[in-house]
Amino acid sequence: MHYALYYWSGIQGRGEFVRLALEDAGAEYVDMARVHGDAVMQPFLQGPTEGGQPFAPPFLKAGRQLIAQVAAILDFLGPTLDLVPQAASRRMQALQLQLTIADLVAEVHDTHHPISASKYYEDQKAEAKARATATRSERLPKFLGYFERVIEANGGRHPLREHSYVDLSLFQLLSGLDYMFPKRMQALSPTLPLLRALQERVAKRPNIAAYLASERRLAFNTNGIFRHYPELDAAT
Amino acid sequence: MHYALYYWSGIQGRGEFVRLALEDAGAEYVDMARVHGDAVMQPFLQGPTEGGQPFAPPFLKAGRQLIAQVAAILDFLGPTLDLVPQAASRRMQALQLQLTIADLVAEVHDTHHPISASKYYEDQKAEAKARATATRSERLPKFLGYFERVIEANGGRHPLREHSYVDLSLFQLLSGLDYMFPKRMQALSPTLPLLRALQERVAKRPNIAAYLASERRLAFNTNGIFRHYPELDAAT
Repeated sequence: MHYALYYWSGIQGRGEFVRLALEDAGAEYVDMARVHGDAVMQPFLQGPTEGGQPFAPPFLKAGRQLIAQVAAILDFLGPTLDLVPQAASRRMQALQLQLTIADLVAEVHDTHHPISASKYYEDQKAEAKARATATRSERLPKFLGYFERVIEANGGRHPLREHSYVDLSLFQLLSGLDYMFPKRMQALSPTLPLLRALQERVAKRPNIAAYLASERRLAFNTNGIFRHYPELDAAT
Repeated sequence: MHYALYYWSGIQGRGEFVRLALEDAGAEYVDMARVHGDAVMQPFLQGPTEGGQPFAPPFLKAGRQLIAQVAAILDFLGPTLDLVPQAASRRMQALQLQLTIADLVAEVHDTHHPISASKYYEDQKAEAKARATATRSERLPKFLGYFERVIEANGGRHPLREHSYVDLSLFQLLSGLDYMFPKRMQALSPTLPLLRALQERVAKRPNIAAYLASERRLAFNTNGIFRHYPELDAAT
């Protein structure tokens, strides 16, 4: 199968969770907006197309199917790319974990944009600072502690006892948080030994290592979901 | 199959999206926290349990399986309760639409809690007012207009051309927004004729009508996700 991925060309963003799955599996895909420009996404977003019309990028074209929403795309790709356990009950667990990752990703975005996604960060800096305090002190330990416990309860290496797209997404989540909150993540690290070991192992997977070293991997920046604003970071 | 639903006993909240599916299908289920108290959820949340450990309510027990995250629960229940099209590609579209509903539900919650979910609304009223302006003027038309177009592109009655759990969730979404933003939703109504007709049809389904008239349907209140604070509502 040849895939076409549609996502904003200038950021890792939510598209990166899909990209890592395609890269890890060595799948053939074209990153459409990077090749043809962001305007290539407009016909799909303006619709009307049947059923699968996307609300927002990322979305994936696989033959005649068009699928949007990161967790749905990964649930779709998982069996084909051998990135999810085969049993239906375990595939469901992968989806559940991915949705919990997505919840934290949404909270992380709202941390620098607590009032409105369409206003500049500079117009909501005071509110972002208050929100960042809650994200750092309450939300990060709660979510990351949960993922640490799930890995521990499943043998210590993978949340699903074997390699899956959830491993890749946890790698991306931690990498993004390391960029956004370096002080806070350093302080939390001793409480997250299994997540940290997983992050390192994912980075060393041959296809992932090659991808991370390539020009296809954009740098984190302050246009994406994970944004480093020093004033939003602290050790606590 | 006999189901056990776990969700906070005092609110509709996210549990209601699951409850409506179980009620519409006439499934046998026990609303565990309403029968046994909220403490009945703690052993599952404190874990460790394998794989499917929930991060938060709602979660569903079905035989030996434990599933958390509303969209994953509905994706699991859909085929068994005949609440999703049979084809894998259409089941995927249902998941995609449900995830977009979930995105709006999360934004709606953050509207009255833009700074921290663990602080009182009264401690973030000014920020909530600013956020509510953006939610009303930008986000509601964008999301609801999208769902209206999807229904239109699929025959005018259902987003998936046939009855599904997505219909039930759109009913709940609109009902919650009607409670939270009565002025804004009245102003938007003329632009949402297909959604409004769907909402009415769902309310008249025999099992749903019986449920809505029963004591099992809690009233919306200001502890849930959809909260009516008059100062956050306006026609625009």
